[in-house]
Amino acid sequence: MLLALYQQTRKYTESLCAPLNIEDYIPQAVEFTSPPKWHLAHTTWFFEEMILTKFVADYAVFDAHFGYLFNSYYQSVGEKAVRAQRGIITRPTVEQVYQYRHYVDKYIQRLLAEDIPGTVKALVTLGINHEQQHQELLLTDLKYTLALNPLCPVYRQDCNLVADRNSVIPDGRQWLAVEPGTYEVGHGGDSFCFDNERERHKVYLQGFEIAASLVTNGEYIEFMESGGYNTFSYWLDDGWTWLCANQINCPLYWTNIEGQWHYYTLAGLKPVDKKAILAHVSYYEANAFANWKNMRLATEFEWEVASPQFDWGLRWEWTSSAYQAYPGFSVSEGAVGEYNGKFMVNQMVLRGASAATTQNHSRATYRNFFQPHFQWQYSGIRLVK
Amino acid sequence: MLLALYQQTRKYTESLCAPLNIEDYIPQAVEFTSPPKWHLAHTTWFFEEMILTKFVADYAVFDAHFGYLFNSYYQSVGEKAVRAQRGIITRPTVEQVYQYRHYVDKYIQRLLAEDIPGTVKALVTLGINHEQQHQELLLTDLKYTLALNPLCPVYRQDCNLVADRNSVIPDGRQWLAVEPGTYEVGHGGDSFCFDNERERHKVYLQGFEIAASLVTNGEYIEFMESGGYNTFSYWLDDGWTWLCANQINCPLYWTNIEGQWHYYTLAGLKPVDKKAILAHVSYYEANAFANWKNMRLATEFEWEVASPQFDWGLRWEWTSSAYQAYPGFSVSEGAVGEYNGKFMVNQMVLRGASAATTQNHSRATYRNFFQPHFQWQYSGIRLVK
Amino acid sequence: MLLALYQQTRKYTESLCAPLNIEDYIPQAVEFTSPPKWHLAHTTWFFEEMILTKFVADYAVFDAHFGYLFNSYYQSVGEKAVRAQRGIITRPTVEQVYQYRHYVDKYIQRLLAEDIPGTVKALVTLGINHEQQHQELLLTDLKYTLALNPLCPVYRQDCNLVADRNSVIPDGRQWLAVEPGTYEVGHGGDSFCFDNERERHKVYLQGFEIAASLVTNGEYIEFMESGGYNTFSYWLDDGWTWLCANQINCPLYWTNIEGQWHYYTLAGLKPVDKKAILAHVSYYEANAFANWKNMRLATEFEWEVASPQFDWGLRWEWTSSAYQAYPGFSVSEGAVGEYNGKFMVNQMVLRGASAATTQNHSRATYRNFFQPHFQWQYSGIRLVK
Amino acid sequence: MLLALYQQTRKYTESLCAPLNIEDYIPQAVEFTSPPKWHLAHTTWFFEEMILTKFVADYAVFDAHFGYLFNSYYQSVGEKAVRAQRGIITRPTVEQVYQYRHYVDKYIQRLLAEDIPGTVKALVTLGINHEQQHQELLLTDLKYTLALNPLCPVYRQDCNLVADRNSVIPDGRQWLAVEPGTYEVGHGGDSFCFDNERERHKVYLQGFEIAASLVTNGEYIEFMESGGYNTFSYWLDDGWTWLCANQINCPLYWTNIEGQWHYYTLAGLKPVDKKAILAHVSYYEANAFANWKNMRLATEFEWEVASPQFDWGLRWEWTSSAYQAYPGFSVSEGAVGEYNGKFMVNQMVLRGASAATTQNHSRATYRNFFQPHFQWQYSGIRLVK
Repeated sequence: MLLALYQQTRKYTESLCAPLNIEDYIPQAVEFTSPPKWHLAHTTWFFEEMILTKFVADYAVFDAHFGYLFNSYYQSVGEKAVRAQRGIITRPTVEQVYQYRHYVDKYIQRLLAEDIPGTVKALVTLGINHEQQHQELLLTDLKYTLALNPLCPVYRQDCNLVADRNSVIPDGRQWLAVEPGTYEVGHGGDSFCFDNERERHKVYLQGFEIAASLVTNGEYIEFMESGGYNTFSYWLDDGWTWLCANQINCPLYWTNIEGQWHYYTLAGLKPVDKKAILAHVSYYEANAFANWKNMRLATEFEWEVASPQFDWGLRWEWTSSAYQAYPGFSVSEGAVGEYNGKFMVNQMVLRGASAATTQNHSRATYRNFFQPHFQWQYSGIRLVK
Repeated sequence: MLLALYQQTRKYTESLCAPLNIEDYIPQAVEFTSPPKWHLAHTTWFFEEMILTKFVADYAVFDAHFGYLFNSYYQSVGEKAVRAQRGIITRPTVEQVYQYRHYVDKYIQRLLAEDIPGTVKALVTLGINHEQQHQELLLTDLKYTLALNPLCPVYRQDCNLVADRNSVIPDGRQWLAVEPGTYEVGHGGDSFCFDNERERHKVYLQGFEIAASLVTNGEYIEFMESGGYNTFSYWLDDGWTWLCANQINCPLYWTNIEGQWHYYTLAGLKPVDKKAILAHVSYYEANAFANWKNMRLATEFEWEVASPQFDWGLRWEWTSSAYQAYPGFSVSEGAVGEYNGKFMVNQMVLRGASAATTQNHSRATYRNFFQPHFQWQYSGIRLVK
Repeated sequence: MLLALYQQTRKYTESLCAPLNIEDYIPQAVEFTSPPKWHLAHTTWFFEEMILTKFVADYAVFDAHFGYLFNSYYQSVGEKAVRAQRGIITRPTVEQVYQYRHYVDKYIQRLLAEDIPGTVKALVTLGINHEQQHQELLLTDLKYTLALNPLCPVYRQDCNLVADRNSVIPDGRQWLAVEPGTYEVGHGGDSFCFDNERERHKVYLQGFEIAASLVTNGEYIEFMESGGYNTFSYWLDDGWTWLCANQINCPLYWTNIEGQWHYYTLAGLKPVDKKAILAHVSYYEANAFANWKNMRLATEFEWEVASPQFDWGLRWEWTSSAYQAYPGFSVSEGAVGEYNGKFMVNQMVLRGASAATTQNHSRATYRNFFQPHFQWQYSGIRLVK
Repeated sequence: MLLALYQQTRKYTESLCAPLNIEDYIPQAVEFTSPPKWHLAHTTWFFEEMILTKFVADYAVFDAHFGYLFNSYYQSVGEKAVRAQRGIITRPTVEQVYQYRHYVDKYIQRLLAEDIPGTVKALVTLGINHEQQHQELLLTDLKYTLALNPLCPVYRQDCNLVADRNSVIPDGRQWLAVEPGTYEVGHGGDSFCFDNERERHKVYLQGFEIAASLVTNGEYIEFMESGGYNTFSYWLDDGWTWLCANQINCPLYWTNIEGQWHYYTLAGLKPVDKKAILAHVSYYEANAFANWKNMRLATEFEWEVASPQFDWGLRWEWTSSAYQAYPGFSVSEGAVGEYNGKFMVNQMVLRGASAATTQNHSRATYRNFFQPHFQWQYSGIRLVK
């Protein structure tokens, strides 16, 4: 079953690239995004470096240079290529990267056919979850690059059914109440989770009411039209600085064409659907919107406790919680340990999942995190009062 | 008694400036510091703007331009002078600023001699606490400026008895245990506190042990000599970036002269006393030091609950808590409301007080906060295991 | 004959791309370089925009978007795509760009088969010379991109015979004397030249002696080993600032591997040949080297007057002349007028040609120009005393 | 007579500071300006370092630290204090700097009373000319600082009679013709000049006509009102970039108050006098204005040859000549040699003198030079056709 999951995951990554031309695999639009070719290679390198070189006796690395070219953060593994220059690596070619993938696949599949210890299984599971994270990044990074092209290229005509999915929200908003008390949060049992979801622990919550549905484009346009982007009092100080420095006056990918708001989607440029769910706002915007409403965002624990009561999965939902360690958190030894703990400052937690998140990748205890100015994920707003 | 406190506070600010030449009142060394003249005027402007112009019927402002020149953050009051250019404002002169202080003092004192409503008293109390905060900033900003002068000027020869006080720590470290359970934190009763200390609320804490004494210079030198600044694994990712970009390899104000560590103090350049308490480290350094020790920093609530058990007041102590709103926090109306809530992102909480903090200004629920890279406060480290 | 020259030029551009993979066509390594795809399209757009849309009655543009995507500086023609983002334009594909080239070729060739007025012929000649300039840029930009790839990819194994050609210089240096007097410089007759080469005019030159041969790598290594990069007195103030800010300590593409200098060439990484001619130095380096020798660089008019006496064509030779207008220079009307005059400040003149310059493209009156810190052209040093 | 000139120069510098408060001596508004205190000390240090320490046997330096604090560019003399932080040096005090001046004056005057060799006299003369240059900078730097103060402080009420003098230009403009031919330029005889004015040498000039009077504010307002700042075709490429990045739309110190242009002067804020001579434009603006007029700026040699025919001395006049070495120019040995040659790249020559230039300091061969974006000198425009 791990073998099947491995194969399915690897195949799905490649299926995401099916609509691409060779040219599309290359560019890195900005330092925080990566080229599709890099995502393909980096996820493969993870399996090679963390598993094959350590647990397959006579394994020969596909190319000794790839460790340098395609690792990411893992500074303990070797000098990494400068992050901002992933877009100039034209060689190896796309074809060679696919050969790399299939070479590694062959060895991992051979390994998974054997009787292997639990530690190796755990690493394969981690590699699969790691690749699932990059599946979403591959889409969001690609969207960022294509959106800069004045031709507004189409990735897939049916993409509004996938990543850019915008289910319509019924009018009126239901509120779900949670009682004050001590709750347990964080990942318990033995099933897979990332290190930042542990340990399961008690927290005391005051009572609150949380919205059953996410904020829509129409609601956000009301905020914009009421002068939300020009009203200092709604904004955090850092948010106001960010907004002024970057002349932000709408969500990412939005543009006003003759009085009508449009947004770039992976299916091309479309008029904004007011009934659909808002995406591509920063934490600063989410927070300002909530202030304008005289409401607030949920903390990550409020979200986690309330989440069994509502549908989620269309947007990553900004919480008001800074990303920090749970009680008893400890960093794993070695490169795997660089995974999450290094980022526990200056980032905010997002909960849920988005329409671009791979199926079954997320869960109620899952903690996504980004710096508060980032807009390029499918990030939205859920209100609390 | 409010009158006495007012007079004492105002006098104390001026006493801090007694050792200064006119020249010393002017420079702003860097955007996040302010000139002494500005601190003198700004604290005065607060009383004029928030109280005199609103509650004294026929009050005539001392100079209509001063609101523009000497407000700080209060964007709702009027266009503020560009923060980075406080050091070019040579007029009004220092003498005129003292005249401004005494003019406002006269009216506030006259007001306090009357029977005034509680709301006005509360504003005066806020103004006093605000001025006390600026007393500490005046010292730390001044130290920052003087330290850049290659002549290492002396502010006061006895200053090592005051701001730079470094009480010697006995060898060996005692650990204080706190049991798991639900605790109450935050400011309760009616006495003065800042808005960010409310509301008092329950939190659930796991058990922990906290050090009875702060980290010493000698312990920190061990960290430095063991390669702490060159070992990536101890550092948060943002911290490593900061350290590399700014070539940080010791606390602020430290310099190595022929193999011997020295630091600039307000009493001039001195050899580092290894038994004395460490100061002027950033959160990044505090966190890296704790990692090197295989320990950690306290959360702000752990600190608050444990603090009745130990002496504090020599250093602001970095906690591992991001600065965020307490449950039920709401921003006050108007300019006073810009006080604290605007900064609740990308900053870390410090608890305690430092030797430069005005007497009786702090308390166990007090929340100081700075961005994690700042070193210019008297900030130190307390370990938890 | 214009037709033949057109065909030969267009074919030569494509031959330069023959060794490329699709991936290589895409990246823009830095703002001042452009991708091969962009060079292919931009030179084509020049013919389309300046000639076909104006002189071919029923010409239909290949794609209305290309004007936006592939113009360069020509701000009067329409809003240009942001220069720094040429590397993210994955669509149109490389194949579509070749189709564009051949579409335009068909129409230009048809036009050249007719009896056309001199003004049109002049524009075609300008377009050919423009494309020849981009042939050299295509090579130097490609070298810049490939050099950043840690794999040191090979463009063409025989490329050291072409762009990176380094003819060996005999030992000892001959000096050629020029007498003081009034000379004529600048382009005279009717043959093609760029606007910045006119008008031919008189200048008075003092007498001087100029080296018959260029500076070699070996001579430059002597400068380096004598501490040239650490000696402030050899450097212009701006040059020293540049050198410190960018930590420059050798020519571009040089790297020291275990005590032996190597350089990246289009044929891969090679040991530096001490007898071969130096390339890839900035004006700052050329000037500092001459100071170290107690000599100087030639002015552009000294160079022009002396050039009949020596071989040139292996390196662009930095002169000590700032790039400025000749007497009587006037900017042409319209987009063509944006060609050269816009850059007549903060740039230095280079004379000659390099081994990467297209055959017959340069001449004794030709004025190349770059900002003094640029190293990525095949730029070298000729001394005057 | 040298003694008298020395005394007069030193006294004049101090007279320029007479209207200042202590506070005014301190700030450095921006990296390219310096505080009055620094100018006072630096010009003194020049006499001490270049003359007293070398030619007065038992001279004891006033304070060994001052060499570090108050040298400027002279990197060969010792590590210079960071240029951008001159504004934080509050100690030594202003009073101590005056003591320093008078201490050095005593020794220089004693020296000048003796029979000293010509080389020493030449250095004193250089020191006097150096101080005269700083007299003008003291005024222009002070203006820059005071102008940033929202209170628009007055330096001297009669200052419009001095630095900001704006003699009225009669309507209509006379043109002076110069014939083509070979002319001599540069400083000849034995009288004092800076190294960059030598050697006198021949140049060939084409014929030209030069305006007898400078451009007025009124003429410049016509340029502004005709859209000059919005018309790309008038501007050099670097100029357009500068203008867009800094949102320049008028000369420095100009501000539009309810439809009426005003400018800050050392006598406070005044309405712009249309008949008076324009000041505070950059080379980019001067060049764009000339393009708009279908005229051009003079080269520095055209200016020098024509200058006996017109009145000059109210503005530094931008020429179209880049600042470069004259034939035979060589850098002097040692620190004095750092004077001018280091800057011979990326700067433009200004000729003439301004109303802020010390009397008798300039001459027809004098070469002032600044980077093309600087506006803070009293720089104006003279047209050539």
